[in-house]
Amino acid sequence: MITNSYYTQDVHGPYELHDIGTLDLEEGGTIRGCTLAYACFGTLNAARDNAILVPTWYSGTNKIIEQVYIGPGRALDPDRYFIIVVNQIGGGLSTSPHNTPAPAGMGNFPRVRIGDDVRAQHRLITGKFGLTSLALVVGGSMGAQQTYEWAVRYPAMVRRAAPIAGTARNTPHDFLFTETLIEAITSDPGFNKGFYGASAEVREGLLRHARLWAVMGWSTEFFQQGRHKALGFSSLDDFIINFMFGYFSVMDPNDLLCMAWKWQRGDVSRLTGGDLRAALGRITARTFVMPMTSDMFFPPADCQAEWRLIPGAEFRPIETIDGHLALFGADPDALGQLDRHLSALLAMEA
Amino acid sequence: MITNSYYTQDVHGPYELHDIGTLDLEEGGTIRGCTLAYACFGTLNAARDNAILVPTWYSGTNKIIEQVYIGPGRALDPDRYFIIVVNQIGGGLSTSPHNTPAPAGMGNFPRVRIGDDVRAQHRLITGKFGLTSLALVVGGSMGAQQTYEWAVRYPAMVRRAAPIAGTARNTPHDFLFTETLIEAITSDPGFNKGFYGASAEVREGLLRHARLWAVMGWSTEFFQQGRHKALGFSSLDDFIINFMFGYFSVMDPNDLLCMAWKWQRGDVSRLTGGDLRAALGRITARTFVMPMTSDMFFPPADCQAEWRLIPGAEFRPIETIDGHLALFGADPDALGQLDRHLSALLAMEA
Repeated sequence: MITNSYYTQDVHGPYELHDIGTLDLEEGGTIRGCTLAYACFGTLNAARDNAILVPTWYSGTNKIIEQVYIGPGRALDPDRYFIIVVNQIGGGLSTSPHNTPAPAGMGNFPRVRIGDDVRAQHRLITGKFGLTSLALVVGGSMGAQQTYEWAVRYPAMVRRAAPIAGTARNTPHDFLFTETLIEAITSDPGFNKGFYGASAEVREGLLRHARLWAVMGWSTEFFQQGRHKALGFSSLDDFIINFMFGYFSVMDPNDLLCMAWKWQRGDVSRLTGGDLRAALGRITARTFVMPMTSDMFFPPADCQAEWRLIPGAEFRPIETIDGHLALFGADPDALGQLDRHLSALLAMEA
Repeated sequence: MITNSYYTQDVHGPYELHDIGTLDLEEGGTIRGCTLAYACFGTLNAARDNAILVPTWYSGTNKIIEQVYIGPGRALDPDRYFIIVVNQIGGGLSTSPHNTPAPAGMGNFPRVRIGDDVRAQHRLITGKFGLTSLALVVGGSMGAQQTYEWAVRYPAMVRRAAPIAGTARNTPHDFLFTETLIEAITSDPGFNKGFYGASAEVREGLLRHARLWAVMGWSTEFFQQGRHKALGFSSLDDFIINFMFGYFSVMDPNDLLCMAWKWQRGDVSRLTGGDLRAALGRITARTFVMPMTSDMFFPPADCQAEWRLIPGAEFRPIETIDGHLALFGADPDALGQLDRHLSALLAMEA
C-alpha cells in the first residue's frame, strides 16, 4: 500500500465507493472486499430503463469521461439518462495494487481480467442499483473491451453497445505493443519487482512508457501537422515532458501494469471456447462499432473484421488524425462525430 | 574497440575495404582513416555509365542487398550493371564505434550525419572508382535517406534515384520512435554509457529494442494474418526471440546507436537552410518514390508529400502487409513490384 495523492477525491471526485465483496478472479487469485469507485450523473427514471454504463480505459478515470463526454445537449445527457461511470479494477480509484494492504498489494496484486471487471460491475449494477437492463454500454479502448464483454456475457441486459477504439479480442500486434509498455516500466531498477516506495522511484521507466504512448497513441499525421503545437506545446520535447510524462508520471506503476496485463488479454471468445464468431454472435444489443481512423492500437481493419461477426451491427468509424488518443477529446470534430453516432444509436429502438 | 564475430567476412563477405582518409564531420567530430566497406557486382562498361550505388539501411549490410535484391534477371542485374553496395558509417563493417580504437571508439565515437556518409561515399565513387555519373542510386530506409541526400547534394552525378521506404526529411513521429529505440538500449545498466565488454552485457536492452522493432517494423495485418507463423515461427514469442532478437542481439549496441542518431536527423533541407522545397527542387534525377503501403515508420502520406516537391518524380507505392520490413524480402510479391518499378526506372532515358 502506498500513498498517492493523484488517486483522490480532490483530483477525480466526486465519486462513490461500493464494496461488492469477495471477487474470485479468473486467473485464480482473490480480491477481498473488492471496491468499485463510480460516479453517477442524472436520474434513474420510473421505468428504470434510462441507465447508461461507461467503463473506463487504461489510465482513465470517471473524471475524464465526465469532462469530455457527459453534459446537457450531449449524447450522454444527464437530463435524459442515468449515467454510471465505473472505474476499472487497477485503475487507481477502484481496488488497485497501490491501495490494497499488504501482503496482497503492490507487486503481489493478483492478475485481473476484463471478465473479472465486468462480473464486478454486474454486481454493482444489479446489487447496488437493482437494474436489470442497460440502455447503453459505451466505452473507449479498455472501456470498449469491457463493453464487448458486457454485450457477450450479459446479452439480455445490454440493449445497446458502443465499443469505441477497441476490440473484442486483442490482436497479436497490440499484445506486443502493450508488452513494450510493461517492459518500459519493469526494466527500471527502481521498480524493484513492484515494491518501490513511490512512483518517483520509477521515473525513468514511466518516462519511457510515456514516450511509447506518444509514438503509438497519436499518429504520424498528428505530429506532421503540428497538432502537438496547436495544443500549446512549443516542441516535441515540450509535448513529451509536459503532456505525456506529466500525465503518466503521477500514476502508480503497479496500477498501470495491472491494467496493461488485462488489456493484453481482452478476449470475449474465452466465453465460447475460443470461438470468436460464436461469442460475437451472442450479442443482441444494437451495436455501433466505432474505431478511430488513425488508431495504431486498434486499426479500423481489425475492428471491421469483428463488426462483421456481430448481428445487425453498424460500422461507424470516426475520422481523425489524433489516433487512439482522440479519446482524450482534443479533436472537437471527432467528438462531434462521436456524439452524432451515439445519439443516433440511442434514438434507435432496442 | 571490441571483438564481434558478426561483423566479419565470414558473415558478410566478400566485401572490400577502402580508406578515404580523414573525414571531418558536420557535427564537429573527426573520423581518422575513415574506412568504407563495400561490395561490387558486375562490370563497369566502357562508357562508364552503368554504375549503380546502393547505400545500406539501419542494421543492414551489403550482404542482405546481395541476397535479396541483386541477381541475373533482377532489376539490379550484375550482367548489365556495375553495382556498388556501400555500408554506412556505424553499420559495423565500415568505420564504426565498435571497430574504432580507443579513445575514439565505443561511447566516444563522434556523431555522424547522413550528409557525412554521402560525402564519404562520394570520395569512394569519384576517388577509388573514378566515376562522374551514376545510372541509379537506390536504397531502402536509411538507404533512402542517403539516396535523397545524394540526389540533392550531387544532382549532376545522379541520373536516377529510387528512395524506397524512407523520407528526405525525417518526421517528428519517426524521430520519436527512434528515440524509443535509443532509450531501450541506453537504459540497460549493462550499457554503461557505451563502455560495455560485449553485446551480451546489453542483452536486456537489445531485447527491448528488438521488441520495439517488432511492433513498428511490421504491421498489425502482418501479425493478424499470421505472417510470422508462415515464416516458420510457432508463436509470437518464438518470432520475437528467434527472429527479431536473434537478428539484433549479435549486433553492437554503439553501432546501432550511431545509426539511430543519424537516422533521426536525416534532412536534405540542411543543404538549403531548412527549405525542403528548395532542396528537393535541386533534384534532376528521374526519381521514383517508393513507400511500402503498410509502413509505420515512413507512411505513404509522408513520402507522397515529399514526392510532390520533386520535379518530374513518380509515386510508386509497394503494396504489402509486411510494413517497413518488407525490405527484408519475405514478401515475394512486394519484391516483384520493386523489381518492376526499378526496371521501368532504369529503362527510362536519363
